[in-house]
Amino acid sequence: MPPTDPFRQTLTSTKLNLNLEDFDLDGRAVTPACPVPWSLRKRRLRGGRQEGVDTVEIDNGHLSVRVIPTRGLGIAEVICGDVRLGWKSPVQEIVHPAFIDPNRRGGIGWLDGFNEWLVRCGLEWFGAPCEDPHHHAAAEAPASPLTLHGRIANLPASQLSVEVETRAPYRIHLRGLVREQSLFAPNLDLESVLTLEPGAAGFRIQDTITNRSSQAQEFGLLYHINQGAPMLEQGARLIAPVKHVAPATDRAAEGGMRGYDRFAAPQRGYAEQVYLMRLHADRRGMTQVMLQNSASDRGLSLAWPIKPLPAFTLWKNTADEADGYVTGLEPGTNYPLPRPVERAAGRVPKLRKGQSHSSSIEVGVQTSKSDVNATAKRIRGIAGGRKTIVGKVPGEIV
Amino acid sequence: MPPTDPFRQTLTSTKLNLNLEDFDLDGRAVTPACPVPWSLRKRRLRGGRQEGVDTVEIDNGHLSVRVIPTRGLGIAEVICGDVRLGWKSPVQEIVHPAFIDPNRRGGIGWLDGFNEWLVRCGLEWFGAPCEDPHHHAAAEAPASPLTLHGRIANLPASQLSVEVETRAPYRIHLRGLVREQSLFAPNLDLESVLTLEPGAAGFRIQDTITNRSSQAQEFGLLYHINQGAPMLEQGARLIAPVKHVAPATDRAAEGGMRGYDRFAAPQRGYAEQVYLMRLHADRRGMTQVMLQNSASDRGLSLAWPIKPLPAFTLWKNTADEADGYVTGLEPGTNYPLPRPVERAAGRVPKLRKGQSHSSSIEVGVQTSKSDVNATAKRIRGIAGGRKTIVGKVPGEIV
Amino acid sequence: MPPTDPFRQTLTSTKLNLNLEDFDLDGRAVTPACPVPWSLRKRRLRGGRQEGVDTVEIDNGHLSVRVIPTRGLGIAEVICGDVRLGWKSPVQEIVHPAFIDPNRRGGIGWLDGFNEWLVRCGLEWFGAPCEDPHHHAAAEAPASPLTLHGRIANLPASQLSVEVETRAPYRIHLRGLVREQSLFAPNLDLESVLTLEPGAAGFRIQDTITNRSSQAQEFGLLYHINQGAPMLEQGARLIAPVKHVAPATDRAAEGGMRGYDRFAAPQRGYAEQVYLMRLHADRRGMTQVMLQNSASDRGLSLAWPIKPLPAFTLWKNTADEADGYVTGLEPGTNYPLPRPVERAAGRVPKLRKGQSHSSSIEVGVQTSKSDVNATAKRIRGIAGGRKTIVGKVPGEIV
Repeated sequence: MPPTDPFRQTLTSTKLNLNLEDFDLDGRAVTPACPVPWSLRKRRLRGGRQEGVDTVEIDNGHLSVRVIPTRGLGIAEVICGDVRLGWKSPVQEIVHPAFIDPNRRGGIGWLDGFNEWLVRCGLEWFGAPCEDPHHHAAAEAPASPLTLHGRIANLPASQLSVEVETRAPYRIHLRGLVREQSLFAPNLDLESVLTLEPGAAGFRIQDTITNRSSQAQEFGLLYHINQGAPMLEQGARLIAPVKHVAPATDRAAEGGMRGYDRFAAPQRGYAEQVYLMRLHADRRGMTQVMLQNSASDRGLSLAWPIKPLPAFTLWKNTADEADGYVTGLEPGTNYPLPRPVERAAGRVPKLRKGQSHSSSIEVGVQTSKSDVNATAKRIRGIAGGRKTIVGKVPGEIV
Repeated sequence: MPPTDPFRQTLTSTKLNLNLEDFDLDGRAVTPACPVPWSLRKRRLRGGRQEGVDTVEIDNGHLSVRVIPTRGLGIAEVICGDVRLGWKSPVQEIVHPAFIDPNRRGGIGWLDGFNEWLVRCGLEWFGAPCEDPHHHAAAEAPASPLTLHGRIANLPASQLSVEVETRAPYRIHLRGLVREQSLFAPNLDLESVLTLEPGAAGFRIQDTITNRSSQAQEFGLLYHINQGAPMLEQGARLIAPVKHVAPATDRAAEGGMRGYDRFAAPQRGYAEQVYLMRLHADRRGMTQVMLQNSASDRGLSLAWPIKPLPAFTLWKNTADEADGYVTGLEPGTNYPLPRPVERAAGRVPKLRKGQSHSSSIEVGVQTSKSDVNATAKRIRGIAGGRKTIVGKVPGEIV
Repeated sequence: MPPTDPFRQTLTSTKLNLNLEDFDLDGRAVTPACPVPWSLRKRRLRGGRQEGVDTVEIDNGHLSVRVIPTRGLGIAEVICGDVRLGWKSPVQEIVHPAFIDPNRRGGIGWLDGFNEWLVRCGLEWFGAPCEDPHHHAAAEAPASPLTLHGRIANLPASQLSVEVETRAPYRIHLRGLVREQSLFAPNLDLESVLTLEPGAAGFRIQDTITNRSSQAQEFGLLYHINQGAPMLEQGARLIAPVKHVAPATDRAAEGGMRGYDRFAAPQRGYAEQVYLMRLHADRRGMTQVMLQNSASDRGLSLAWPIKPLPAFTLWKNTADEADGYVTGLEPGTNYPLPRPVERAAGRVPKLRKGQSHSSSIEVGVQTSKSDVNATAKRIRGIAGGRKTIVGKVPGEIV
């Protein structure tokens, strides 16, 4: 009879003063009865701006996910056979936060380290850099500029452990904790669980944000999920159960919103376009989107309960390959507009003392026409024939 | 006959290109004749924002002091039986300076790493963030914003060594050097000696600041000594030979200064109150203060020569425990007001080329009613019946 | 028969996830037939603000060059018998970029780490801190303050290798790559080769800057080569084939430009003086300058093809020794004036997509009167009797 207790290994613990540099786990040793070979590798990166960065690679036998504990538990890339989830940023290394100054370039220094497939934006705020005269309730501190996309991507995990179920389906859970905290400021914990099932063509991210301060606190979370070539290409499409879409800016409104869900070939000097969306959900409250390639035989799908992540943002940056040819699929608590704009629209959520916000995303990788078609059909089923309202006024969205 | 030479061990030396990661010293080996067991442990912290931080813990057999060379030789905490000198900051790790941006949040980014029991503020400036149009004499450099509490707490020690007297009283000295330097800027050295005597219920900090530049230079030093629960509690008191006290701000003046020396229970949303004081000294020029708990059986006392540290600031931050329930006892060269305010009041000291400023503080831990009473009596003796002037106008202090 | 292939060793490679901490190479093992003993040592520095900095010291049997891969491949110092190329900065350690905030002190935080003999300024911009409303072509990003001397000196090398020719003259090449890159920003690579020949009284720096973005991009490169005592002293001189010289500022114009090429003894409170120059070149397009001491028996010479580095700046900072007694000899693509000034003067160069800019400098160390005389004669030969125009209007230079 197999042991009922899961296998557990601590990888990082500030409490235990522990951070394993190099660590390997082999599925054959941990789950000898599991028919699918899987593995986990923790590595410390060396050289250049990646010196001292930790990564954890989990291979479930079908796909491999590379997590960056040092950068807020973001995901560098996912490899699934000949499909790579990721993009080619002009930033070539996984940059240690010590090399990032978010204030640089008028508050967009965050971009100096931006090359992940998945990077979280938040937690106190996320979105465009701006002045925000709003004071944190607990602080007599001066208001200060909010820098692009918040702090969480440049904070290292304080705790990290792996847990493996020793019975079928032998799920592997990577649990991490990132703390965004200071004095006279919000005190928000991000607890994240990445779950892989050996052999599966996808994985799951489950995040919980908890307000550890004594006072109600605004917060925000945006999953900046970024896909480049070759899946992104001329003729690639976003399949989504869109209820309402609007351009974020005049630039995005160019072309009258025709083809907002279609992608162009790389174009030198392309200026980014951003679209704001509300999506339909099914009866269980789930929604789903998919990026599919031109031939409709490769896809990346994201499915999530819509309630905690009601806003969906599409970032088109089909620039020259040298400059970062990429699109961002971005489920969020709200839109990445300046916080005062979001607050005025009533979209900035709050957490009471001790309250938590939970969100999750199921990531799927489609590697055939039938996969893509099945997923597209499911997404159409979510819309269920309901209409899409296409707004043309920048920023006008519910 | 015991050797007359003290035992010496270098722990850190930039000159020798040395920084021991993990190092242990056992009193039984170094001072076999010493009846009290003592020990020293240097450790490198791992994980989260504490990755790469060095700490040195010295246990004198009665109490244990944990020094942070990486953070300007601050003291994380002191453990003495069931008494802990320290507080519970929302900042949970000993944060490496690489994760601190003092400019964050309009110049209060220093708070992102603030959780020490003792942290020095200085050396070029300390106090509230402000613009200061005053130029450094040697510089054609533009004036720049002064950030909260200066640089010294986020500079690592360049030299660190331990020296142990091999004859009674077998004193242990931890000597460190932190350099605050740049080009076209002040060049100030902090040499610090922490002295413990095996078995003693206290310890001593002796600091020397030296102006290494060729020109006269303003400077400042504030010991931000922070105590939380359980010693801090409703009914806890500050015992001090106060000559003159004034509120720093309108907020501190609330309540008409009644009970400025009494502490309240944790209160959600409490806004900090700061009091500025001049203290009486005894004939030898010594002054002393004590924080005592409500039952008057636990206390923390600080005694120091008043001349180099003539200003005393009391910081009350009796906020919710989750947000940092703490008071700061802060001997300083002057008050932590914006430097232009301090300069206009004639309170900013200067050092000539090569000149040094020496200060010292004796820390005592009271663990019984009789300890507390004896210390309180000594402090009353310093005042010697002399009056306390209670000012009510914010900032009006000599 | 000796092998024709050179010896190669990778020291740092972000691609291979490699950064050797301590590494030694002995000429006797690599080039047994080489009559001059040489060696290479890579070391990781420890303690204070130098913790984690890598240095590579190459000794060619006559002189020793100490390179700092962690600081943009700058050169800390060169030792040649009793001659030291270098200076004594108030900044005493080789500072890790994690401790540098370029925005500090109104944009001159770069100075917090400034103590190299040779430090490159650039690559996106170099020169005085300023606001520059000019947008990068690829960016919708806000314009931002340009900080002193650019980013390159605080970026670590991503690749580093040594290559040794196994046949006479057994040249040693240290090859490095530093990447200055972000999203929505310039993407510039610096590839640098430092070449030493065993036994030679000099060495060669060869740099190539390549625009990796898809769009034309402004750039700049200034070699900030800094020499202090004892070579710098009262009576030391700059020998240069000056075609045109002008003061950079009113301060530099003091004294009517007489003696702009002579150096004074250390002077407390000296305010820096900067001179802008165009130099003559010989028929092959080479120019050369030399700093010589008062006795004309010690010298430091720089020779370079003038086309890629047409501007020469002389920085006099003959301040008190405690504050940094130093002069800077600074070949550059243009002058270190605020970029808008340089742009308006048509001096800011551009690189097209994929285009490279190559520059090189031959460094010579003169250790006798005859060395100094021979070099001075060569420099006079470059001028060939052509005139020097001495401008007196600050900033008025071609």
